Amino acid sequence: MRICFVGDSMVNGTGDPEYLGWTGRVLRHERTRRPELTGYNLGIRRDTSGQILARWREEVTRRLPAEIEGRAVFSFGVNDAVQEVDPKQSLVHAEAILDDARARWPVFMVGLVPIVPDGARERSRKLDAAFAGLCARLGVQYLSVFDGLMQTSIWLDEARSGDGAHPAAGGYARLAALVLASAAWRRWMDTAPTP
Amino acid sequence: MRICFVGDSMVNGTGDPEYLGWTGRVLRHERTRRPELTGYNLGIRRDTSGQILARWREEVTRRLPAEIEGRAVFSFGVNDAVQEVDPKQSLVHAEAILDDARARWPVFMVGLVPIVPDGARERSRKLDAAFAGLCARLGVQYLSVFDGLMQTSIWLDEARSGDGAHPAAGGYARLAALVLASAAWRRWMDTAPTP
Repeated sequence: MRICFVGDSMVNGTGDPEYLGWTGRVLRHERTRRPELTGYNLGIRRDTSGQILARWREEVTRRLPAEIEGRAVFSFGVNDAVQEVDPKQSLVHAEAILDDARARWPVFMVGLVPIVPDGARERSRKLDAAFAGLCARLGVQYLSVFDGLMQTSIWLDEARSGDGAHPAAGGYARLAALVLASAAWRRWMDTAPTP
Repeated sequence: MRICFVGDSMVNGTGDPEYLGWTGRVLRHERTRRPELTGYNLGIRRDTSGQILARWREEVTRRLPAEIEGRAVFSFGVNDAVQEVDPKQSLVHAEAILDDARARWPVFMVGLVPIVPDGARERSRKLDAAFAGLCARLGVQYLSVFDGLMQTSIWLDEARSGDGAHPAAGGYARLAALVLASAAWRRWMDTAPTP
């Protein structure tokens, strides 16, 4: 199985001194079940939903040949919240991405993460809820991690003591643990794709 | 500084249970000097020089905004050797890639790695020498790692006991150590780009 992780700096793992991010930690864990598992990290710093819409299909298609089981995991939206993109626009972009992607590969979406400034964090929380509703409507698996990351202080503490935006190893490990512990992720990973 | 690593499965780190590959290990080490260092892994399994020529520029340009110091590291050619691409064609592709890239970013190239089948390994060794000559002519920093990886048995042993092509953590760690120990890499990383 080959999984493309598409998104922003949080997908890239920016700020993690171990250069794994949450995606590397999830892959490392999943490999115990699937030794042949390959990951492609397609997170780009500062990418908004509109920029991801413009590039995701081409980059993912190059990496997922038809003859091998491929999957796509998306996580984006915090840059929309930071840059105050109209949430209606973010939803239009997300729907275009997910509606196209789910027709070709099994798709999973990980929700928005908390960010340090109060206003942007509140916009991030609201967009997370809106994306959850969109995915429910589209039948795309969505995992909200916002509240889970706010339950301990590690994510925001590391972001504040780092570059002000990105956590370090502890925050990314916490996010990976939330993904791996979720029933939605386990079900999605263990379900064979419909041909 | 943001570095794009462009290449094939060996750049992706396929087979490494730690999901770092040599690029992740190099980044982890370099971060001790540059805490803000971001890496983008653009290795795609089975990519030949021709496929990389077709995609590298667009993918790298998206990830290296003009206002931030960006660099590009290339490593490819083993799939040309495996698939018996005419070496003249591989050289044409490599020159087109490197000549274009060096005009825009500081460029470094890591040579071909050994592969298991004797015939393909010999073609890989020859293409490594040809790429070294090309890079000398173009003034692009080139680090040959073929002989260094043949000095111990770990690379080929891990490839044989893995999927037959890719090493595991030991091989990738050895390759990262060769890069980090080289004067060429140190000089390249420590030299400010010409504006």
